[in-house]
Amino acid sequence: MKKFINSAETMVAESLQGFVRANSDLVVFGTDRKYVRRRELTHGKVALISGGGAGHEPMHVGFIGQGMLDAACTGHVFTSATPEQIVSAIDDVDTGAGCLLVVKNYDGDLMNFEMAMEMASSRHTVEMIVVHDDVEEQPGRGRRGVAGTLVVEKLLGAAAERDMSLPDLVKLGLETTDCIRSMGVALSGVTVPHTQRRTFSLDATEIEIGVGIHGEPGHSREPFANCDTIIERLCSTILADIRKPEDMTGLLFVNGLGSTPPAELYLAYNSARNLLEKQGVSVGRSLVGTYVTSLDMQGLSVTLALLTREQTELWDFPVKTPSLRWG
Amino acid sequence: MKKFINSAETMVAESLQGFVRANSDLVVFGTDRKYVRRRELTHGKVALISGGGAGHEPMHVGFIGQGMLDAACTGHVFTSATPEQIVSAIDDVDTGAGCLLVVKNYDGDLMNFEMAMEMASSRHTVEMIVVHDDVEEQPGRGRRGVAGTLVVEKLLGAAAERDMSLPDLVKLGLETTDCIRSMGVALSGVTVPHTQRRTFSLDATEIEIGVGIHGEPGHSREPFANCDTIIERLCSTILADIRKPEDMTGLLFVNGLGSTPPAELYLAYNSARNLLEKQGVSVGRSLVGTYVTSLDMQGLSVTLALLTREQTELWDFPVKTPSLRWG
Repeated sequence: MKKFINSAETMVAESLQGFVRANSDLVVFGTDRKYVRRRELTHGKVALISGGGAGHEPMHVGFIGQGMLDAACTGHVFTSATPEQIVSAIDDVDTGAGCLLVVKNYDGDLMNFEMAMEMASSRHTVEMIVVHDDVEEQPGRGRRGVAGTLVVEKLLGAAAERDMSLPDLVKLGLETTDCIRSMGVALSGVTVPHTQRRTFSLDATEIEIGVGIHGEPGHSREPFANCDTIIERLCSTILADIRKPEDMTGLLFVNGLGSTPPAELYLAYNSARNLLEKQGVSVGRSLVGTYVTSLDMQGLSVTLALLTREQTELWDFPVKTPSLRWG
Repeated sequence: MKKFINSAETMVAESLQGFVRANSDLVVFGTDRKYVRRRELTHGKVALISGGGAGHEPMHVGFIGQGMLDAACTGHVFTSATPEQIVSAIDDVDTGAGCLLVVKNYDGDLMNFEMAMEMASSRHTVEMIVVHDDVEEQPGRGRRGVAGTLVVEKLLGAAAERDMSLPDLVKLGLETTDCIRSMGVALSGVTVPHTQRRTFSLDATEIEIGVGIHGEPGHSREPFANCDTIIERLCSTILADIRKPEDMTGLLFVNGLGSTPPAELYLAYNSARNLLEKQGVSVGRSLVGTYVTSLDMQGLSVTLALLTREQTELWDFPVKTPSLRWG
């Protein structure tokens, strides 16, 4: 396992420090480095906080800034942030209009964010949105929150910036996470630095379909195939699962899981777009890049969101974060 | 070799098509898809054109847009664009103020860009800047142009947008490429899809120091070490080689070579910044990400540019391209 790290113990802290130093125009460390927050807060706006395990960078810290998150809490690799971290962030960034926690549907994250909500409830009004965009249903646990989390954070961030109230944000969050579906594929497993163990191994002829973002195996091992075939497998599953109301704008997001170079992501986007358009889905918005990772996994995920006109406006709303900027 | 491609023959065309479709608000294909250009040209501005082999994505196409390039020509993998492609781009995007070609110092690129210049010279005023930021001197060939090319394109793009004349841009280009130094390291070689050959192989204990961006071996094979040690090796070589005038702003750019995940790049940035600051270099501008690649190489490069006040203003100037956006 060759990685650019100094030690498994210090890697998360050092990487976060590099991130904050490289983006010091936009973000700062919070109290005792327990979270990262915007350099400038907007008073009277609902505060958006997200977080989770490390290993998914640039998510969530890369999405802190105007039009998106106010703070993000990072735990150890693939391990939730602690309630204490989350409470510290809430105490710091809630400027009076309340706080919305955006949480990916994983047991550890749910437990710790819920505990933080309870701990903060005497001093703050806090609500929570659980993202569950994966097409896979995990027995007894529902769908995982994966790359679609970026879309939820972008839309809620824009709405918060436009002074939407906390109850309306919760409503928007529930509607939004329902209109997004994602599916991932891996060409390699990952090695978790702390354990030095590979989560699964694939030989030269195999791929893993349906992976999440914690190095866990997917729902089936299949033969390696060309990009069109792999993408067809993902897109047809997504299309069978997503609600397709009238007059929607398709947002197609092809996300690298860590080690997939940009040229391949653009090629996969091309395959996905061909396929979706053949199926009558009109793609009006696009995002291609490495935004939600699973350490150094060679793989990608396809996310499709079918957005109403209001949601499309929120997607287009200016955003100024280390990892997403436009408008 | 598992990659997200359909065939070695079609991979460049399909990837470029995906890129253009995903960024159709900013870029369009030029004549017969021989180049990619800005959707809207600015009349009366010197046109900036770059290009080279595929395999370095998002460079150069990702840097087309306001404040940076007007067009970019992409050849096959690690193979220069043809003079015909470049002439087509010149014919299209020169709006009367002349044309500046930004070329990386590689034999094939030099030959084809020079030939294109000659072919276009009866109809256009064309000048050329050769980027040679690598610390390594190649016998008889000088220094290669690597990740520092991004910095040159950013500064010249901003100056052109501010209506700098072609002769002044040439002068600025020469000054700029002189104040930039880069050095790369690989943890793995790459497989070129057309030949199915690995350009070099490293075992679990080896790294390759001094690599360029065409999968070629570097100048020495060394034992794998922790990130601080590797980065110290790169930064000390850069510092020994770069001119260090007074009152300069350090721009530190840590670039992924294709398969290095964002978290490791941020960690490497942190190492580099610690090291440079210890050596008295004050880092005032930063860029961390996968911008100049060598297919799916696991590795990174460190670029240091020591910028004058004028150059720093050009770096800060607004840019709106698929891969770089700020201001």
